Amino acid sequence: MDFSSELIAEGVKEFSKLPGIGKRSALRLVLHLLKENPDYTNSLADNLKKMREQIKLCKLCYNYTDTEICTICTSHKRDKSVLCVVVDTRDIMAIENTAQYRGIYHVLGGVISPVDGIGPQDLKINELLARIPNSEITEVILALSPTMEGDTTAFYLSKKLKELGIKTSTIARGIPVGGELEYADELTLGRSILNRTALV
Amino acid sequence: MDFSSELIAEGVKEFSKLPGIGKRSALRLVLHLLKENPDYTNSLADNLKKMREQIKLCKLCYNYTDTEICTICTSHKRDKSVLCVVVDTRDIMAIENTAQYRGIYHVLGGVISPVDGIGPQDLKINELLARIPNSEITEVILALSPTMEGDTTAFYLSKKLKELGIKTSTIARGIPVGGELEYADELTLGRSILNRTALV
Repeated sequence: MDFSSELIAEGVKEFSKLPGIGKRSALRLVLHLLKENPDYTNSLADNLKKMREQIKLCKLCYNYTDTEICTICTSHKRDKSVLCVVVDTRDIMAIENTAQYRGIYHVLGGVISPVDGIGPQDLKINELLARIPNSEITEVILALSPTMEGDTTAFYLSKKLKELGIKTSTIARGIPVGGELEYADELTLGRSILNRTALV
Repeated sequence: MDFSSELIAEGVKEFSKLPGIGKRSALRLVLHLLKENPDYTNSLADNLKKMREQIKLCKLCYNYTDTEICTICTSHKRDKSVLCVVVDTRDIMAIENTAQYRGIYHVLGGVISPVDGIGPQDLKINELLARIPNSEITEVILALSPTMEGDTTAFYLSKKLKELGIKTSTIARGIPVGGELEYADELTLGRSILNRTALV
């Protein structure tokens, strides 16, 4: 595309670096900024810079936080004996939205993936293992995606946690609530039969 | 959604103000910024601010430009006797991409729309009419969208331009190149028959 202005071209370049934003969407965003008052762009830019500069990782669970220790780790209402291991902060938000979990979290920052050159030392695994002794934690729930890498990471962690005498579990795999049986893939359906739940 | 951090919530709020970006996409963008180096966010923010501050409207055609007069208006290769009236800078980009037009432009900034309270005085219409006397312009092409508002604006302009003794035309309406006749709407097909082109 040929832009009438170098400045527009640069703005489009900046926006299209973001995930999920192509050149056309980027141009749309740029023209939106140009149409609005300059204060609008300044507020956007300054708030993003402020966010990036001031945000911290919680010293306990490695979730994003505005303070040294995050609100979940400091809360007196949370059950400190159950810890849920997740990949990133989005997973915490998803689990929090269910309102079914009152324990604490630990953010790994990724999964073990030899193909991408990510080993256990690249994740917050040592930090997790160091956190457990001298804590109230008795159970660790591994809430990782059911992919090859997620399962590998879960297996690695469960071995390490067993050495510490910690009870581990993974979130249940099965037919989604509201899902149709006939459309479920064989693997999920197979697992849902193997891990059937007794009716009481 | 419940964010673990006020700063994240603010970042999401800022991004979701942009057109076409919902809360979920905004969160994705925020987490992307947080994952990357802080320099990345600073570069994004600074470049957007710079763009918004330094961009100007061309004093002749009101297109966005980095200089007082835009590159099209100053170019010696353009035909200064033909002027194309468009709504915004995106239309100029689209026409420039066709490489079929070598004249100059005039950006109206919108169309006459009584419903939205936009009258002729809110657009660059007086600037257009003032531009024509003492210029080389002999023909004005109205390249407005074939909507009710676009047609109203074209009608208004053609009346005003006729008073100045300027030849006016609108871009052709008809079946798009590669379009199927049977899928064309009645209005377009009707216009394409009325405005048929003689074969030579």
